[in-house]
Amino acid sequence: MTSHDTTTPPTTAPRSTTPLTATTWPIAAATLAFGGPARDGGEVHDAPAAEWGRVLRAVARAGFDHVDLTDAWLRPGDLAPSRRPELLDVAAEHGVALASISAIRRSVIHASDGEENLAYSHRTIDAAAGLGIGTVSVGLHQALTPAQQRELWFWTVTGHEDDPAHWDLAVERLRELGRHAADVGVVLSLEMYEDTFLGTAASSVRLVEEIGLPEVGLNPDIGNLVRLHRPIEDWREAFELTLPWTNFWHVKNYSRDEDVARDAYTAVPALMETGLINYRWAVQRAVELGFQGVICTEHYGGDGLSVSASNRDYLRRVLPEEGDVELGVSRVLQPRLTTPTHDRAGVAS
Amino acid sequence: MTSHDTTTPPTTAPRSTTPLTATTWPIAAATLAFGGPARDGGEVHDAPAAEWGRVLRAVARAGFDHVDLTDAWLRPGDLAPSRRPELLDVAAEHGVALASISAIRRSVIHASDGEENLAYSHRTIDAAAGLGIGTVSVGLHQALTPAQQRELWFWTVTGHEDDPAHWDLAVERLRELGRHAADVGVVLSLEMYEDTFLGTAASSVRLVEEIGLPEVGLNPDIGNLVRLHRPIEDWREAFELTLPWTNFWHVKNYSRDEDVARDAYTAVPALMETGLINYRWAVQRAVELGFQGVICTEHYGGDGLSVSASNRDYLRRVLPEEGDVELGVSRVLQPRLTTPTHDRAGVAS
Amino acid sequence: MTSHDTTTPPTTAPRSTTPLTATTWPIAAATLAFGGPARDGGEVHDAPAAEWGRVLRAVARAGFDHVDLTDAWLRPGDLAPSRRPELLDVAAEHGVALASISAIRRSVIHASDGEENLAYSHRTIDAAAGLGIGTVSVGLHQALTPAQQRELWFWTVTGHEDDPAHWDLAVERLRELGRHAADVGVVLSLEMYEDTFLGTAASSVRLVEEIGLPEVGLNPDIGNLVRLHRPIEDWREAFELTLPWTNFWHVKNYSRDEDVARDAYTAVPALMETGLINYRWAVQRAVELGFQGVICTEHYGGDGLSVSASNRDYLRRVLPEEGDVELGVSRVLQPRLTTPTHDRAGVAS
Repeated sequence: MTSHDTTTPPTTAPRSTTPLTATTWPIAAATLAFGGPARDGGEVHDAPAAEWGRVLRAVARAGFDHVDLTDAWLRPGDLAPSRRPELLDVAAEHGVALASISAIRRSVIHASDGEENLAYSHRTIDAAAGLGIGTVSVGLHQALTPAQQRELWFWTVTGHEDDPAHWDLAVERLRELGRHAADVGVVLSLEMYEDTFLGTAASSVRLVEEIGLPEVGLNPDIGNLVRLHRPIEDWREAFELTLPWTNFWHVKNYSRDEDVARDAYTAVPALMETGLINYRWAVQRAVELGFQGVICTEHYGGDGLSVSASNRDYLRRVLPEEGDVELGVSRVLQPRLTTPTHDRAGVAS
Repeated sequence: MTSHDTTTPPTTAPRSTTPLTATTWPIAAATLAFGGPARDGGEVHDAPAAEWGRVLRAVARAGFDHVDLTDAWLRPGDLAPSRRPELLDVAAEHGVALASISAIRRSVIHASDGEENLAYSHRTIDAAAGLGIGTVSVGLHQALTPAQQRELWFWTVTGHEDDPAHWDLAVERLRELGRHAADVGVVLSLEMYEDTFLGTAASSVRLVEEIGLPEVGLNPDIGNLVRLHRPIEDWREAFELTLPWTNFWHVKNYSRDEDVARDAYTAVPALMETGLINYRWAVQRAVELGFQGVICTEHYGGDGLSVSASNRDYLRRVLPEEGDVELGVSRVLQPRLTTPTHDRAGVAS
Repeated sequence: MTSHDTTTPPTTAPRSTTPLTATTWPIAAATLAFGGPARDGGEVHDAPAAEWGRVLRAVARAGFDHVDLTDAWLRPGDLAPSRRPELLDVAAEHGVALASISAIRRSVIHASDGEENLAYSHRTIDAAAGLGIGTVSVGLHQALTPAQQRELWFWTVTGHEDDPAHWDLAVERLRELGRHAADVGVVLSLEMYEDTFLGTAASSVRLVEEIGLPEVGLNPDIGNLVRLHRPIEDWREAFELTLPWTNFWHVKNYSRDEDVARDAYTAVPALMETGLINYRWAVQRAVELGFQGVICTEHYGGDGLSVSASNRDYLRRVLPEEGDVELGVSRVLQPRLTTPTHDRAGVAS
């Protein structure tokens, strides 16, 4: 077994030179649907690797060769470094590459837990480097409120809202994380989410510009915004603004209806193909604007993994093929990508 | 042509011993979408077998090898016993096995028609036995009210509600049916449906417990409940309670939205994969809790057969494969299953 | 290169004699999703053929071998006749046959633009003839109002309504177009659309009967009607009335919910398979009533081309196969059909 030394981060040099195509694009399954305690009731990161294998087996059976480690399932930042080879082995055993890490609801400007979340985010970046993962996504959304937890869909009532007074702290702490990420060859992506500093396209761009590091970009999870039961930003304009800064991408879709005269709004989780957002258009614009990062297929409600798999198949049909569009120049650095492999040769060695 | 003697019911002895898998699980198409009179305007059970063949041909073309005889289409209980070989022949001709019978809106506690419905249910059980069918589903829902018939979706207004005074009668008559079913090697399944004694998980379990026969279990058609325009029971908790008692399963799904503050509820028929209920989770729990019966894919509205076919394909992707989960011990007897076959060797002989 | 002489229209004689089947039915992709200016900002019909090729390449990649020239994309009526061979060549290059032309929002009874729209419609019919296209669809819907343009879905507020005083003018001008179409071997199809003279099944039939030409029939785009946020006509009855007069068919579907007691209506674009309208039933009735024309798969919102492709696959699964239903006799002439071909032999020669 290869030794994984986190103090020797993977080099950032050999980033992709050939533009990604519909065939080669890394499309990862989110694992947020697998949240909850381990079978023995303990923490998943303390569970035997075989327990991780059960989830990775389902991911592989659904046809994925890349996975996003969503920390609602497994927290790499809390995994003992000595167990990283176990995780890489069980992933390789199922033919699934570890594409990215998504840390959820760990705002670094949380009133009481901000510093702890900052420390956790640092550990997560180290874990990414140690696992050969090139992308870490964080956000500013906070724990669901009790009122949100009582709803069928938490986004139908308003939750936490960022206080403008904390803007500078957000810039400072996210920049600190970005510098760490840069040091270890990882890019940091900021997930868009309503009512935070990343809640609109304009605010998101302003934040990432103010942070001012090539290793810090956006995760334009516009699906988070189009499901709200209130007037929303135009999704197409939101992509136009944010795609130039995109280095990672949570994708999902909703069927949305509005009846403004009746003050009625409805949105239900939908296949990417059938929902409001035209992802055929969006992926083409993304390439034109330089995006070459991991796409992570998410879905809330129902059978998230199966919908994610259908969404992956859809993306393979509509992502540009070679020569379809000209790859643009991104405003931010694009990540190193993990190659799916059944052995670990070359990964984080 | 083999003679079918209804007085010699199929033996109940050789029930399945190998756990069902994603490949072998019997998944039947509901035929409720084919309701209405025969081409000559008469009753379908009086029509020539060729007319039945038209429906079975569509079912087979949609990729099914099992069919549920929904009595909104064909009423086996009203079919002359002498015509059963014809039905078996035409089914075999199309390569479709008769998996189950679903009797709809024939409540045995109906104020005026209860006794007639009881007699009809007895005839249906006899027909099942004579056709080599191991599962009969009945319910307590009654005819749609005129107000329901005026709606686009009948479930958006409240219909018949069971009167608590009839509980004992329900137990008594369903137990009587259960004893008959047991005598002829059939299991009886009680379909969940709102505002009846089978309208909540707790009440359904109480009913089946009070009936107290291993041959009487539940058909947890939770799809019936998640489409209501009012607050609903948590679908996951409903399955946890009812799956241990499940011996047959109508599956369907809905995209549901709620906006409690606005008193707004909406639900539209959806693919099983995309709707509210996570059937990946539900089928795994069903196996863990001992379910080994027929799954019947239903769908209201639009092209029910095509959606049923998509749902069958979905189920084949998410039903456990051998070794994925450990088969549990059900609280009720699981049914004899019909093998799809192009000849009728061994069926009800 | 073959010369295309628009004064020598294709003969109308050799119309289809073998009934169309699920395999042979011409199913065209609508191109309305590709509206907007050309890459250089000019008109699409002035753009180089290579620009047309980009769209046709996407259509072909989505698996289509027929395309509808929706004039929201390319206006054949405004294309210089000298460029028709270029269009035919680029279509042939991508293996896509030009099946039909849909002229949108060009009402011949528009208060100020009616005469111009009439002239445009004449040019469109000539273009069809010159391109070997057998079907032209027009309608009476007018430009979206500013209020409609502000909505997420324009159909959630009421737009233009036809004035009964213009009925005779509509009959007269559409009859004039129909005579022209007849002269050049094309059929004219009238697209149903709310609040116009083609806004209900009864009015549509009355209009086409009053026009009284075999070359003028209906395009029963009932999808336009089932998405309205108000009580609607029964879709099944609407088809029963209009299918005998159908010579072209825009198909699309919506998931619709109603809660009359709460005055709530919602409708979101859906796959044909899962939406409100049962197209399995509708296509069977269409054949029984004599329809043998082009089916054009449309979809508003999201990724229209991908949903159209899914809808095409669905149609191939449910259109009658040979012998399934008996082809009826239509009340109107069915169109000449274009054969998909990689060269142009025999097309409009």
